[in-house]
Amino acid sequence: MTKKVVVPLADGFEEIEAVTIIDVLRRAGVDVVTAGLGSPEATRGAHGIDVVPDTTIDTIDAGAVHMVVLPGGMPGAATLTEDPRMQELLKAVAARGGWTCAICAAPMALGPSGVTAGKSVTSYPGFGDRFDHGPYLDERVVVDGSVITSRSPGTAMEFALTLVDKLCGPEVVGELVASMLVDRAAPAYEA
Amino acid sequence: MTKKVVVPLADGFEEIEAVTIIDVLRRAGVDVVTAGLGSPEATRGAHGIDVVPDTTIDTIDAGAVHMVVLPGGMPGAATLTEDPRMQELLKAVAARGGWTCAICAAPMALGPSGVTAGKSVTSYPGFGDRFDHGPYLDERVVVDGSVITSRSPGTAMEFALTLVDKLCGPEVVGELVASMLVDRAAPAYEA
Repeated sequence: MTKKVVVPLADGFEEIEAVTIIDVLRRAGVDVVTAGLGSPEATRGAHGIDVVPDTTIDTIDAGAVHMVVLPGGMPGAATLTEDPRMQELLKAVAARGGWTCAICAAPMALGPSGVTAGKSVTSYPGFGDRFDHGPYLDERVVVDGSVITSRSPGTAMEFALTLVDKLCGPEVVGELVASMLVDRAAPAYEA
Repeated sequence: MTKKVVVPLADGFEEIEAVTIIDVLRRAGVDVVTAGLGSPEATRGAHGIDVVPDTTIDTIDAGAVHMVVLPGGMPGAATLTEDPRMQELLKAVAARGGWTCAICAAPMALGPSGVTAGKSVTSYPGFGDRFDHGPYLDERVVVDGSVITSRSPGTAMEFALTLVDKLCGPEVVGELVASMLVDRAAPAYEA
């Protein structure tokens, strides 16, 4: 069964992080839908790159979603934190046992939904005190139950490959590492 | 003086490569302009991500350009190879001593302009016999004079940091490696 992943895009999203997540998951055969929180025409990244989202967050049926992945970047991650539609989606996906994942500034956007309470997490340095969580780890990717967090554009590839590992298994990760000539795929820290 | 870089976008461009180049160069303070070869509304990447280019290639004044960087992806790289506007821009920038750079499938698109003749290059494996060049090297990033080539999405960060090194110097590279938490920045192979 094809896995469905939603990647929300709010103005100010970090482009390397968003695109690495989407591209790598699609290479793995995952059904990735980008969902804009603002204008349906284009969402502007933190470095001025305009991406046209596949749909808006209002159209997402949480019942069909296996994983939500939040890219970082500011103010995008702040918008994800404050948007009630985003928090409802996270709660609904988590309640069904789905994955909730975020990188860079965006782990804070997992906070209001309650999914990080008591969980080991990481984030971009300095963002750890902005949300409720368990142990904070200076690891590049942290997996704790169905919550996966990571740190920065420089960890985006490792983060995306960890998502593929969970959805598709290590064989698919191995194929992607070979075909994309990834220099290393450090194993994620498993809490 | 701010350096000006053009990143052409043709349908089928590789998204991780294009966005890593644009994002990293803009973080370094470089004036990056994305120039679409097709519709001005959006260019569709090889993995279905629609990016709105800043302008079209017809508006580019080669006299103001320090560097052209071609992202890979198919059929994007084939379009870059065949488009006469693209080849004229490469010739004009090279004639003024500017940089001509490409990654993945796109080093072949440097070929028709003549800039790779006799130069050491690399590319995505299997694309080395599609254009005229000097020694072919299985290195992740190759610099030969003002021609810089690289291999894949997995080498995009190293490639982008090499471009920053040439335009802005190693100090700026060091700042970006630290702020983006890049795991390693292998030095490029200098022919």
